[in-house]
Amino acid sequence: MTSVGEVHIGLLGLGTVGAGVVKILQSQRAMLEERAGCRLALAAVADTDLTRAREGLDLRALPMTNDAARVLGDPGVHVVIELVGGLEPARTFILRALAAGKHVVTANKALLAHHGAELYEEARRRGVTLAFEAAVAGGIPLIRAVKEGLAANSILSLAGIVNGTCNYILSKMTDEGIDFSLVLKEAQAQGYAEADPTLDIEGMDSAHKLQILVSLAFRTFIDLKDIHTEGIARVTAADIAYARELGYRIKLLAIAKAADGGVEVRVHPTMIPATSPLAAVSGVFNGVFITGDAVGDLMFYGRGAGQMPTASAVWSDALEIARRIAHGIPALALELPSVGPAALPLRPMETIRCCYYLRVMAQDKPGVLSRVAGILGENDISIANVIQKGRGTREAVPVVIVTHEARERDMRAALAKIDRLRDVAGATTMIRVEGGPA
Amino acid sequence: MTSVGEVHIGLLGLGTVGAGVVKILQSQRAMLEERAGCRLALAAVADTDLTRAREGLDLRALPMTNDAARVLGDPGVHVVIELVGGLEPARTFILRALAAGKHVVTANKALLAHHGAELYEEARRRGVTLAFEAAVAGGIPLIRAVKEGLAANSILSLAGIVNGTCNYILSKMTDEGIDFSLVLKEAQAQGYAEADPTLDIEGMDSAHKLQILVSLAFRTFIDLKDIHTEGIARVTAADIAYARELGYRIKLLAIAKAADGGVEVRVHPTMIPATSPLAAVSGVFNGVFITGDAVGDLMFYGRGAGQMPTASAVWSDALEIARRIAHGIPALALELPSVGPAALPLRPMETIRCCYYLRVMAQDKPGVLSRVAGILGENDISIANVIQKGRGTREAVPVVIVTHEARERDMRAALAKIDRLRDVAGATTMIRVEGGPA
Repeated sequence: MTSVGEVHIGLLGLGTVGAGVVKILQSQRAMLEERAGCRLALAAVADTDLTRAREGLDLRALPMTNDAARVLGDPGVHVVIELVGGLEPARTFILRALAAGKHVVTANKALLAHHGAELYEEARRRGVTLAFEAAVAGGIPLIRAVKEGLAANSILSLAGIVNGTCNYILSKMTDEGIDFSLVLKEAQAQGYAEADPTLDIEGMDSAHKLQILVSLAFRTFIDLKDIHTEGIARVTAADIAYARELGYRIKLLAIAKAADGGVEVRVHPTMIPATSPLAAVSGVFNGVFITGDAVGDLMFYGRGAGQMPTASAVWSDALEIARRIAHGIPALALELPSVGPAALPLRPMETIRCCYYLRVMAQDKPGVLSRVAGILGENDISIANVIQKGRGTREAVPVVIVTHEARERDMRAALAKIDRLRDVAGATTMIRVEGGPA
Repeated sequence: MTSVGEVHIGLLGLGTVGAGVVKILQSQRAMLEERAGCRLALAAVADTDLTRAREGLDLRALPMTNDAARVLGDPGVHVVIELVGGLEPARTFILRALAAGKHVVTANKALLAHHGAELYEEARRRGVTLAFEAAVAGGIPLIRAVKEGLAANSILSLAGIVNGTCNYILSKMTDEGIDFSLVLKEAQAQGYAEADPTLDIEGMDSAHKLQILVSLAFRTFIDLKDIHTEGIARVTAADIAYARELGYRIKLLAIAKAADGGVEVRVHPTMIPATSPLAAVSGVFNGVFITGDAVGDLMFYGRGAGQMPTASAVWSDALEIARRIAHGIPALALELPSVGPAALPLRPMETIRCCYYLRVMAQDKPGVLSRVAGILGENDISIANVIQKGRGTREAVPVVIVTHEARERDMRAALAKIDRLRDVAGATTMIRVEGGPA
């Protein structure tokens, strides 16, 4: 490779983040070029919408095109920044860019979670870089930290708040005691939740990011559909209040843990001790807690989304690539995600162990708690804590139980039996508890 | 440069961290070599003490020498890991290693804070790398984050808890209401504080790390003696209790801020809102809060010291260097710290602005608060909050005041006058407040 004095960048997608990428180049060009060690040129910007105004940008001054093929087919473009989002045509665009020997930067977590293995392999085959700092935890330089900073560690576990929308909703429910549906509406009105919030609140977006983190931290490619994923729509104000009473907070966590020769990978609402550093991650912020065998506990905190934080992460990748191009430094195949020589198999959800919070809705009669406790005992589950507040009414009242560590399979069996008890009204709420006693 | 199949490492200093570095190589060799893309050989280990047992290591199996010159003079050694500590002979060792064209990894914050400019310049001149992830915040991959992850940001401010000993002492004082000297003794007994704890508790160690962080985040080399540095020895249990009453926690913070065309750089006990993420950093943990113009607020949390966390950071650097050597990739001069084209001048301490906590010890007589408030007002300082609990005794009682934002010069002038008041007994305690209202 020869060195290059000016690196040409093609941008696919001028949405919110794309506009942020252009703004940073326009406002900080001298700084970026000094850090890259070369000049930077925005060779082309492709978007299907050439007319909608982007705040803070003069579209007429940009090399706009509505034809992505012109960017991908331009032999002068060294780096393609893919901010189209979604699976197609983003996947095809990236494959074509890689096949043309272009380096690619992407923020597309859904695409990497679905097709990462294919894309990394193509990048490896073509000898180029595929970088994705912006795909997980937005502005937090987390990918770099896991890949480079913790390179001498076996990662034991990670637990992340990686979806700002869910964390905003749960924080608001916790602070104000309001129910989920009300907070969701408010979040949509304020732009913290999408009009169709399914991907966020059902936990899929968190699962996407977890799939990517697991590929780096555990060197294994987990199939997205095998990640046990629960969203936050069934978390009630009552459960949040009980959590508080017990010394916990409820967060949507993306969890991966090495255990018993395998790796657990799961996304679900989780009770964590109120004193845990993750409990202090509130509002739209993200936080990722990682434990390595040498480094011990680490946490990374910051903005997981938004125009400028995400653009900051995109540029961290683009600058590193530009610097290498400028100095004739080749991309190294071993820097791309791959399955490690000692990759752990995915553990079936039924085999995981944790503590559980249960809210059983039962008739306020003598003997109900004893029957529930009996069923738990028969299934090898012991009780750590109970809150039962009889009201002397004929309505069902909550019996709240926190268990010691138990096996998921046993808990599911116990719940099936508990919910068939005559004095139990409706399905029992179960929320997993992590991080030790509150 | 040609590629190399086996990278030879020389280790200077087999103390606690050095032993950790060897342990990681011995226990994780296959993983490290896979990530570096080459074989790794520990060519030599130099220490003045060849006999003292190091827990978990078999010294007879190591290539020990008591002569550092043999490591520095060995043309086969590609990378020198300097863990001798202190200024000399560490400085001479590193200069000799660089002059011989060897890459250097160091955890030596004192040395970099004193002589960094000289060492970076020598590394640049010799075309080698000088890496120091382990020098600041131990296992937290912070250096990498600031240099690479935030490369597209102008850093606006940073505030760090970067000394675990001080944070352990302050946390213990806060949790248990015990006085400084008692906690220090306990910390020494438990190994959380050195027999001579001066460097830690006087804030110098924090100032060293701040000097290094500022060189990267603000691209300017601040002379260590120009960093305003106060330690924690004068923080009392009473001030900690008042802080709590006001909604604050007291932490020893290393602070740097861009303001008024300059940069403030200072280390002192600081009151921060109890809800701030930094307030949740307790015990021996470190936490560094950084605000960038694009990325917004970030925090990094983890173990700032200790054998294995620090060794983890050392290996993150050594692996990156080994990977480059193995693939014939040259060190880039622009990756070394340097003074930026727009480096900000250091602002004199007298010109900074913040809020202040004051504890005035005054006779419990009418009119004292009015005279204190009068002096503050004459010096352009307005009061946000007062706690005065008269006891009807003849002893001095505390008058606690939190001010709105004021200028340090004005505060110093006001304090000189307040302490000369007839009814004021002894010097007023002043603690700066950061992070907004509690």
